[in-house]
Amino acid sequence: MSVLELCDREIAAVPLDATVADAIHKMLDYHVGAVAIVDSEYRVAGIFTERDVLRKMSLTRLDPQTSSIRDLMTTPVEMATRQTGAGEALSIMLTSHFRHLPVADDNGKLLGILSIRNLLEWRVDQLSRELDSLEQYVSNDGPGG
Amino acid sequence: MSVLELCDREIAAVPLDATVADAIHKMLDYHVGAVAIVDSEYRVAGIFTERDVLRKMSLTRLDPQTSSIRDLMTTPVEMATRQTGAGEALSIMLTSHFRHLPVADDNGKLLGILSIRNLLEWRVDQLSRELDSLEQYVSNDGPGG
Repeated sequence: MSVLELCDREIAAVPLDATVADAIHKMLDYHVGAVAIVDSEYRVAGIFTERDVLRKMSLTRLDPQTSSIRDLMTTPVEMATRQTGAGEALSIMLTSHFRHLPVADDNGKLLGILSIRNLLEWRVDQLSRELDSLEQYVSNDGPGG
Repeated sequence: MSVLELCDREIAAVPLDATVADAIHKMLDYHVGAVAIVDSEYRVAGIFTERDVLRKMSLTRLDPQTSSIRDLMTTPVEMATRQTGAGEALSIMLTSHFRHLPVADDNGKLLGILSIRNLLEWRVDQLSRELDSLEQYVSNDGPGG
């Protein structure tokens, strides 16, 4: 399974010349907690999250309508590729305390955005299935069977 | 195991007469995404999350220093009790799309705050342990063993 299957269905991205308000609207419209900032060739230039809104904006007098996302985004961004395993991506996020991880191709072009919540839910499903099949095996052919 | 063991270590709470800025400072200081609002007897009156900052505040001209948390908090709040199982709490949160769930005693007094992330990590750990012990059982005593 590709890690892309675990990404949010719609990719939340805004261009480098977007305002902070554009990025916030995108997060609200897409019901996600992070938006990728992409250059004119759709390469990932930065990331901006609802945590950034809390940390960098909520207690300031910055006007989101006139503030450039370029000034508030986090950059550079750690990213996954199409080849990154889901378990590996989860491990990166748990270790680095990231809640979101963009997936990019070899040229840095944005393919999707992973969230730790999606990955944890995937891991719960995966482990549950493994456990079910092992339990079935034990009850069919197990000791004394 | 009590669901309280899965709550954030420090309880992020502010009184009903706090400002929105107080609530935001509390989330930033405690590195959490939600703060409970409590009355003078420490009963849960509402909840305020970083998602609420995004939705209700970030695109407005509200001044967090002078806005009352009472006006922006979500109320009433769905809550767990000491008797709620961790699996049950996780299920409530997944179904209702809550990321946080306060735990209260029989009088509504705040005991802790659960996050979906903590619960999903607990579930991954729990399933991994079950799987390990079943695998060990199969390899020790399983078919042909």
